Amino acid sequence: MTAREIIRKKRDGGVLSPAEIAGFIRGYMSSEVTDYQVAAWLMAVYLNGMTIGETVALTREMRDSGQHLKLGSIPTRKIDKHSTGGVGDKTSMIIAPIVAACGVTVPMITGRALGHTGGTLDKLESIPGFDPRPSPEAVRRILKRTGAVIMGQTEDLAPVDRRMYALRDVTATVESIPLITASILSKKLAEGIDGIVLDVKTGSGSFMPTLERARALARSIIDVGGRLKTKVVAVITDMEQPLGRTIGNALEIRECIDFLNGNAAEDMETVSIRLAAHMIRLGGAARSHDRASKMAYEAVSKGHALKRFREIVRLQGGDERVIDDSSRLPRASNIEEFRSRSGGFVTRCDAKLLGLASNALGAGRNRMEDTIDPAVGLYLQKKTGDRVKRGDVLCHIHWNDKHRLRDALPLIEQAFEVKSKVGRSRPLIHAVMEG
Amino acid sequence: MTAREIIRKKRDGGVLSPAEIAGFIRGYMSSEVTDYQVAAWLMAVYLNGMTIGETVALTREMRDSGQHLKLGSIPTRKIDKHSTGGVGDKTSMIIAPIVAACGVTVPMITGRALGHTGGTLDKLESIPGFDPRPSPEAVRRILKRTGAVIMGQTEDLAPVDRRMYALRDVTATVESIPLITASILSKKLAEGIDGIVLDVKTGSGSFMPTLERARALARSIIDVGGRLKTKVVAVITDMEQPLGRTIGNALEIRECIDFLNGNAAEDMETVSIRLAAHMIRLGGAARSHDRASKMAYEAVSKGHALKRFREIVRLQGGDERVIDDSSRLPRASNIEEFRSRSGGFVTRCDAKLLGLASNALGAGRNRMEDTIDPAVGLYLQKKTGDRVKRGDVLCHIHWNDKHRLRDALPLIEQAFEVKSKVGRSRPLIHAVMEG
Repeated sequence: MTAREIIRKKRDGGVLSPAEIAGFIRGYMSSEVTDYQVAAWLMAVYLNGMTIGETVALTREMRDSGQHLKLGSIPTRKIDKHSTGGVGDKTSMIIAPIVAACGVTVPMITGRALGHTGGTLDKLESIPGFDPRPSPEAVRRILKRTGAVIMGQTEDLAPVDRRMYALRDVTATVESIPLITASILSKKLAEGIDGIVLDVKTGSGSFMPTLERARALARSIIDVGGRLKTKVVAVITDMEQPLGRTIGNALEIRECIDFLNGNAAEDMETVSIRLAAHMIRLGGAARSHDRASKMAYEAVSKGHALKRFREIVRLQGGDERVIDDSSRLPRASNIEEFRSRSGGFVTRCDAKLLGLASNALGAGRNRMEDTIDPAVGLYLQKKTGDRVKRGDVLCHIHWNDKHRLRDALPLIEQAFEVKSKVGRSRPLIHAVMEG
Repeated sequence: MTAREIIRKKRDGGVLSPAEIAGFIRGYMSSEVTDYQVAAWLMAVYLNGMTIGETVALTREMRDSGQHLKLGSIPTRKIDKHSTGGVGDKTSMIIAPIVAACGVTVPMITGRALGHTGGTLDKLESIPGFDPRPSPEAVRRILKRTGAVIMGQTEDLAPVDRRMYALRDVTATVESIPLITASILSKKLAEGIDGIVLDVKTGSGSFMPTLERARALARSIIDVGGRLKTKVVAVITDMEQPLGRTIGNALEIRECIDFLNGNAAEDMETVSIRLAAHMIRLGGAARSHDRASKMAYEAVSKGHALKRFREIVRLQGGDERVIDDSSRLPRASNIEEFRSRSGGFVTRCDAKLLGLASNALGAGRNRMEDTIDPAVGLYLQKKTGDRVKRGDVLCHIHWNDKHRLRDALPLIEQAFEVKSKVGRSRPLIHAVMEG
């Protein structure tokens, strides 16, 4: 079948065979199939969908488009976590050391800020010297030494996903469940992991605004993962307001260190421990979720997780002194208080708008080539449900550039809503789904 | 709005404003909008459709993407004909001289063979010396002298249509009614014509296999033409079997000359005179269809149309001696008789398969860069409904290459069906539609 016939079949709502999908993707890799043919096909997939069988074939082909991370020499089970992206979502840097401290290997591949959401890699780069791209040999060495590594996607790992993602971005074909499924799983499976815990965000600050879409994405990834012999647990968590107290790169690193020192914001703790516990159980270090949960809490309270974090930072070339002296992290020149104009209860603390405000300050990217100011961001003094008096500080704005502050302020203004009556509260964990 | 937002809007079933369509098409012309973005958009249009308003905006933008043929100095009305493509469809070369002989100007833009269908330009090029691309000045001069010109699309006329058509061809987005509408009309309107007669083919040998789709395309072109101040008459004609007796370039030219000499196959005559009459009426040379029809018949019987054809050939550089001596046209080295294995009635004489057989002999193209053998093709002795005896010749095969003959034979075998009972006959003219 030619590329045109494969596009035509998907256009007409047909189901592509694994051989047809393999031919198309391999043709794309070898440039026999052009970008514009793939673009037309992506739109046909977006609008007509794919079956689980097609998504499995696509995921497998993308996974095998490059090198696999060879982790066979590591005897313990390897579990990764993936979040669909949110605001103030700094759980990766907390979970990886906790899970490693409990005896499960965590080869964690993570990404950059895009849109209103932050990126774990950008946050870690606010630690002086931190190398987000260790070589495959270094990855294996670090994993053997300390059980966790946090790194960016390399050139060799599922390279077709990188090309296809860039194409989806400019052709408005990102928000497709089968395409998201294949994109996430192909990279993870190329790591050679045994299981994945998926944090599917839902709410204003997520890419899956409705719970129904979040569930559908989780179900797709669980089913496709299962067909490719990889166990997936999906936790659907709330992203209507930011997670934790901080938004912005160095500020979030500081909050992670506080967390691992035993000073956790309640929502951060609930989500992080829940995700970590699923990883510990999937990784075979605990038989029950409750047992895994207890292990995760203890890894923090006994200081084991902080120790692992210190090792990860050091082994990836970062300045571990930031852990004891957070003044070594980049700091903004100015801190502005943003105060409530009325008293009552915070009824909205909108994740998307606060993410956009933090970006406006310089913490994020609008385009891939934008540079990031690691120091700027927001510290939330009040969140949804909190009681406030008129004049109370709602958040602190860490800023470096007056013009950027001016752009951020109206977004912050819009993000907060204070009313006389307390609003309806949303659950933090909406659902847990398993294969 | 960025290109991505325009794609997204169409993807989500939105209606694009004229300004959005203009921005997108102009961006494509200036290469700010890429081929892959246009490809994704074309697929979204294919699957989600366009309103008449959107199609009008697209047609106008495509029409204005290049130069217009300036025909203002010609006082008579200018009417063109367009066929959606068929097998043995040689009406253009018959109609243009008939209509010109009746006092209406015909600046006819026509195309090349592609797929199983033939192309008027390729047929005309079997006349030695014939120039299918006269300059705009030459076009005006020829039109003033003899009232008709038959030419290919030039570089300058609706150039975005050429780029977009090439893209649609490789991205399986050809068969979309709004896109076909804009493609046909943009070229025709850039000629500066007053009206169009549209021959929409339906049946196995057409690109609109069902009558319902043919009607929908006709309706779209009539409505969009009307909104752009151009009167369109659509005639839906049958293409279940080839039109006339011949398929293949020089063979079809010969049949045209026979027609203009008064020896017409019945179906050719019915379709050609009907289309010509609508052009004559639209062009203002006759008040009623019946009157126009009579004029068309007389243009043939009195020899005026043949005289015009001779002038067109001469003025476009062709050897007019072919008209009196058809042996000057390319001739195949071999003629093979294809005989019926049984007696009864011809119940199928399949246009698509016979078109493909003619292509297999070398008369057509599979790719744009293929060269054509002008001499080869088929002469149909029997057509659907004809009575045959066992051993009767169904068609003559004009061939030059043994291997190609071998490829063509099974297609011809499949194309003909002879049964003991006469089958159901299809009308030749399915419908006439007008704005």
